Amino acid sequence: MPSLTSVKAALATQAIETPSWAYGNSGTRFKVFAQPGVPRSAFEKLDDAARVHAHTGVAPTVALHIPWDKVDDYAALAKHAEDQGLRLGTINSNVFQDDDYRLGSVCHPDAAVRRKAIDHLLACVDVMDATGSRDLKLWFADGTNYPGQDDIRARQDRLAEALSEVYTRLGDDQRLLLEYKFFEPAFYTTDVPDWGTAYAHCLKLGDKAKVVVDTGHHAPGTNIEFIVASLLRENKLGAFDFNSRFYADDDLMAGAADPFQLFRIMYEVVRGGGYTPDTAFMLDQCHNIEAKIPAIIRSVMNVQEATAKALLIDREGLSAAQTSGDVLAANAVLMDAYNTDVRPLLADVRSERGLDPDPISAYRRSGWADRIATERVGGAQAGWGA
Amino acid sequence: MPSLTSVKAALATQAIETPSWAYGNSGTRFKVFAQPGVPRSAFEKLDDAARVHAHTGVAPTVALHIPWDKVDDYAALAKHAEDQGLRLGTINSNVFQDDDYRLGSVCHPDAAVRRKAIDHLLACVDVMDATGSRDLKLWFADGTNYPGQDDIRARQDRLAEALSEVYTRLGDDQRLLLEYKFFEPAFYTTDVPDWGTAYAHCLKLGDKAKVVVDTGHHAPGTNIEFIVASLLRENKLGAFDFNSRFYADDDLMAGAADPFQLFRIMYEVVRGGGYTPDTAFMLDQCHNIEAKIPAIIRSVMNVQEATAKALLIDREGLSAAQTSGDVLAANAVLMDAYNTDVRPLLADVRSERGLDPDPISAYRRSGWADRIATERVGGAQAGWGA
Amino acid sequence: MPSLTSVKAALATQAIETPSWAYGNSGTRFKVFAQPGVPRSAFEKLDDAARVHAHTGVAPTVALHIPWDKVDDYAALAKHAEDQGLRLGTINSNVFQDDDYRLGSVCHPDAAVRRKAIDHLLACVDVMDATGSRDLKLWFADGTNYPGQDDIRARQDRLAEALSEVYTRLGDDQRLLLEYKFFEPAFYTTDVPDWGTAYAHCLKLGDKAKVVVDTGHHAPGTNIEFIVASLLRENKLGAFDFNSRFYADDDLMAGAADPFQLFRIMYEVVRGGGYTPDTAFMLDQCHNIEAKIPAIIRSVMNVQEATAKALLIDREGLSAAQTSGDVLAANAVLMDAYNTDVRPLLADVRSERGLDPDPISAYRRSGWADRIATERVGGAQAGWGA
Amino acid sequence: MPSLTSVKAALATQAIETPSWAYGNSGTRFKVFAQPGVPRSAFEKLDDAARVHAHTGVAPTVALHIPWDKVDDYAALAKHAEDQGLRLGTINSNVFQDDDYRLGSVCHPDAAVRRKAIDHLLACVDVMDATGSRDLKLWFADGTNYPGQDDIRARQDRLAEALSEVYTRLGDDQRLLLEYKFFEPAFYTTDVPDWGTAYAHCLKLGDKAKVVVDTGHHAPGTNIEFIVASLLRENKLGAFDFNSRFYADDDLMAGAADPFQLFRIMYEVVRGGGYTPDTAFMLDQCHNIEAKIPAIIRSVMNVQEATAKALLIDREGLSAAQTSGDVLAANAVLMDAYNTDVRPLLADVRSERGLDPDPISAYRRSGWADRIATERVGGAQAGWGA
Repeated sequence: MPSLTSVKAALATQAIETPSWAYGNSGTRFKVFAQPGVPRSAFEKLDDAARVHAHTGVAPTVALHIPWDKVDDYAALAKHAEDQGLRLGTINSNVFQDDDYRLGSVCHPDAAVRRKAIDHLLACVDVMDATGSRDLKLWFADGTNYPGQDDIRARQDRLAEALSEVYTRLGDDQRLLLEYKFFEPAFYTTDVPDWGTAYAHCLKLGDKAKVVVDTGHHAPGTNIEFIVASLLRENKLGAFDFNSRFYADDDLMAGAADPFQLFRIMYEVVRGGGYTPDTAFMLDQCHNIEAKIPAIIRSVMNVQEATAKALLIDREGLSAAQTSGDVLAANAVLMDAYNTDVRPLLADVRSERGLDPDPISAYRRSGWADRIATERVGGAQAGWGA
Repeated sequence: MPSLTSVKAALATQAIETPSWAYGNSGTRFKVFAQPGVPRSAFEKLDDAARVHAHTGVAPTVALHIPWDKVDDYAALAKHAEDQGLRLGTINSNVFQDDDYRLGSVCHPDAAVRRKAIDHLLACVDVMDATGSRDLKLWFADGTNYPGQDDIRARQDRLAEALSEVYTRLGDDQRLLLEYKFFEPAFYTTDVPDWGTAYAHCLKLGDKAKVVVDTGHHAPGTNIEFIVASLLRENKLGAFDFNSRFYADDDLMAGAADPFQLFRIMYEVVRGGGYTPDTAFMLDQCHNIEAKIPAIIRSVMNVQEATAKALLIDREGLSAAQTSGDVLAANAVLMDAYNTDVRPLLADVRSERGLDPDPISAYRRSGWADRIATERVGGAQAGWGA
Repeated sequence: MPSLTSVKAALATQAIETPSWAYGNSGTRFKVFAQPGVPRSAFEKLDDAARVHAHTGVAPTVALHIPWDKVDDYAALAKHAEDQGLRLGTINSNVFQDDDYRLGSVCHPDAAVRRKAIDHLLACVDVMDATGSRDLKLWFADGTNYPGQDDIRARQDRLAEALSEVYTRLGDDQRLLLEYKFFEPAFYTTDVPDWGTAYAHCLKLGDKAKVVVDTGHHAPGTNIEFIVASLLRENKLGAFDFNSRFYADDDLMAGAADPFQLFRIMYEVVRGGGYTPDTAFMLDQCHNIEAKIPAIIRSVMNVQEATAKALLIDREGLSAAQTSGDVLAANAVLMDAYNTDVRPLLADVRSERGLDPDPISAYRRSGWADRIATERVGGAQAGWGA
Repeated sequence: MPSLTSVKAALATQAIETPSWAYGNSGTRFKVFAQPGVPRSAFEKLDDAARVHAHTGVAPTVALHIPWDKVDDYAALAKHAEDQGLRLGTINSNVFQDDDYRLGSVCHPDAAVRRKAIDHLLACVDVMDATGSRDLKLWFADGTNYPGQDDIRARQDRLAEALSEVYTRLGDDQRLLLEYKFFEPAFYTTDVPDWGTAYAHCLKLGDKAKVVVDTGHHAPGTNIEFIVASLLRENKLGAFDFNSRFYADDDLMAGAADPFQLFRIMYEVVRGGGYTPDTAFMLDQCHNIEAKIPAIIRSVMNVQEATAKALLIDREGLSAAQTSGDVLAANAVLMDAYNTDVRPLLADVRSERGLDPDPISAYRRSGWADRIATERVGGAQAGWGA
């Protein structure tokens, strides 16, 4: 059995990156419901992210989305983060919200559109230089809606060319993270639809190119922990986008739909040597109907709980049962950790760090929700389009 | 074998309703790409729908969406339709785009919100009285995103109560069409998620309540033609919303993703006695990236082709093979019809009615696309939010 | 919060029926792996089932499968059960393993085959009379593999006719339980593919006809607890077949694939008034690669744990949060119960009843596995075909 | 537009390999229905395969399955094939039907089992040397049923080691074809579950290792033609196993469930330069309820028809529409070919080669079915277990 001391130490150093856009309004194609107190700027998003970190102690960085978080002075933004105990994290590019991108960005049939898209990606590396961010996360909405609409293979060639140009631009300590997604917004083909495609591209690019696993981006029934184990074995796992899904890319709170799956994923991370800063653990969620800040706190806690359970697995006992071919005993070792109530353990970890053991209650008591609802009046609330 | 004369006669009287909203802008949660020439009013939508009917001859009615197509004077709207050889069709309610509906409409935990939603539905019946529409189509975005969020069963009770009130309000010749949907925009529960739920409610309401089958609203792998056959057997099939999907509710052009499925569905319609005006054959699509009017023309043609193939099935031969238990022979009879190229037959049907045999080319030659792109400048384009 | 006394009382009276066939050999189409000590008769199956009940205290009945468990003297079989503290439970019919059933049983195009199948079902009611069983469980492998192979609607008519004849034969205290299944062994249509179809048939049959929910028999992504809530609301839920799946009808141990789902299902059972003897809680599993008896014990325990968590939900708190529209608070009430480690509570329940608190260890220590491996030599092991 | 001459020439040289096991009995886990006239030996399977080739002209080779088709004298078997105008084709290994393989073969935790499995694979290469077969097709049933049962990553290491040993044994003109499968018979993890895993292994092995695409082995909604295009781009597509599915790995006749998909796949083959002998086009089907030989003939014809349509695509027109970004026009070019009735064209191709234009009728008239039903009496029919 792992020692409690080592488990606590591992939990105390956990770092979960929260995404700036999760603090803004979001919705489905049917409706975006505005919520009171939603930030109106990248600075206000950082203020909210700081509350998550203040109450959980494990959310020290914030991912930015360009152009949604575009500012004139990134040094000022970084300073604003630092003043609240935060750092700016991964830079997320956006090449899907301009009218030019109707038929794609880096895979578009028109070279001029591709040029525009690549230029945006290169500009994102400029932002990284300014913010000190390590990772450039690339998600492409590229794809087609109808059979025949475009040439599947030619689009791969265009993609490879774009990635290569961006990769070349990276600094020594910068990385390119390539995200795959099963479908949406494209409905017939998606140009990076699965881990195999992302892996094949990253392999050709080089060591600084890694794959992002978004837990909501798979076909029904896909065994995500298998992919995690495989990518770690290939040294190609760069990051997670955590969220939950029942159906498609639902972007619900991490751990809300299938907490057992999240636990299994975290176990493969731990077992495969991925529980290090080389793996970026990020949230990527949409809080369409629930209050955003406490939803993010809850998500962070859910990831913590899954991690704690994964760390508690009796790996020697597991290995012994596996080697002996005892199916039920091996499964029981895993379930024993999963069935453990780790909330007291995590409360201890928090208390030992001087935090309130119950982050949700602490946030509710803090008055922050009322304050921002009152203060953030006027101006345009942040959302996916801004 | 069916006589060619009877097949042609059946095809000549086909009626496919096009939805006003398909002429407006649409998109995904990531982006709505605006297109030139998109209508700015319900009147202009009718102008476009008239082009579809002019070129195909089988799209005589237009479904309206309230409040997107709300006008002060429905008689004037009906007159505008009539002047172009159209009629106003099904009234679609919308109880999902008001901030009050964040947690549902007729299933909302708050009685005041339910009242507001029901009042809107009743107002839609008022519109029906004004337009002479037969059908009220009800689709509810109601559901929950998280386990525990609301009480599944209580929501069914609220739904039943609302439906009952609306049903009571219907005139003698009016019908209530209840649509089900697997998921989206709700991601944990949907209050009318499957045909069983819709059927159970309609059964209790009475003969004027029927089920709508939207071809994009099912779980992966669902056999839709089985549902069609079952609903016809129960005399509860009211209407179709045709569209195509590869993944979720993609709302692509009918017949674009799985033309064989559309053919099988149309065969069950024909075989089950559903090829009559009692079944409303509607399109419900989103042309996010392709030109809207020709996409609708193409969709209408795809439905026609599937219908023609279904009508061509040698039903006596099929029945003989089925009865004898000859699996391959029975399948071959079906495939023989499916593999037939029915485009010449449909070209004949059009020519005999004085139409151009090639509706797409005729539309392209008509200059309508250029004309609306030039004329419809200024004002707000129609879309899901307007 | 529910009182611990009431929760314990509810748990102490739980009854989970185990299926005779789960004690025999099973496998996939690729291979059946024989296991040492597997029963060679219905009597030996009861001996194994008695061990499960002895160690758990909540598995007092055993479901039989006819003809797999056909014996000359059912009174003797019942006596054999009674001697070990068991009772004979649900009678499961089998109309899928005779060469005559290649194209179906009660839905077969040939009336002679249908007659044979119905006669078997009627004979199963004779068995019920002899065993004192309350429930006849009907699962049909009927369906088609190819479009056109048979007439979907005619098959429904034949099904209705068969069900009606069997229903008429039932005694006053007997019930007909109709099971649905998404697919397999039929691959194009299945004649009872979903709860809607089963519900529609049961509704016409009458009060003694109820629907069976097998947790492995749904399309990907289906919300099973919604179906449970709906069937309870309609007073049409008759029984569960518990098992787990990751992909199709995998028939793994209950609670092994998605323990959170099992908890949500049990919550709807409790909330909907279904936690009574009127609902039959059965296992239906295949232990292809793991030891069978401990796998069944583990499955029983998994159902117990899910039930305990469901009973622990603070329903007043949940209701208050739901009514107020507080999404996060309502979800938190549910998760609070789910995250509780209920194993100590169940150990207490067992100890209070004089049982070993750890059924798996107790079984391992009992020496039963070695004993049957030694004693049950010669003869044919029980399996799906015998 | 492609010239009809070139299309006919391409169709006349098509080669589709039929699998020996498709001529034997097969079924689901529920039942294997025996059919009259089914072969009792590898020799009789070849006799049946010869009928398929005689009537279609495009099925010149037969895939063997070891040990199902194990014979003492492969030269005699090859001669038997040759005498009927056939050649022996791909060798399929079987490491899933021995009791030792309960927990896997080359991924088994026990080194002794792995040794046994690898030895079988090496013995298959010996068979290839004897038969002159080019390809060794590897499909592994390996996987786990329960979380924790075995170590996901260690199993990948074992797999890599086994593949490496087999690859080293290959002759200069021999290839290793690695097949992936989403699930079944393993239900939690499968050791080669997707194209990415197969690709990563083949990449490390070398140029003689290629990936097999079985059209029934994907998650719901997977875009198979995208995978085909990607593998061709990477020069890693080795072979197809054609069959149809509605749900899981249903193994129905190719083209029976989604003929449009088969057409799209064949288009990517043609477009990607894969329509050459370097790609092995094989059937892998189970004719559980339909007559086997005519079902295979029908499958071959379905592949021919999909190929013909793919060859008929106006690629210049398609490319022009794609480049100009005209979504509807590009889709229309594709659909124009798909909607063409190519049966007359294929009848011509057959007639020009001296074959009956209607292979199914010719087979029915040949009397072969009656003859084998009469002659093949006594002995054990071939099936998956023999």
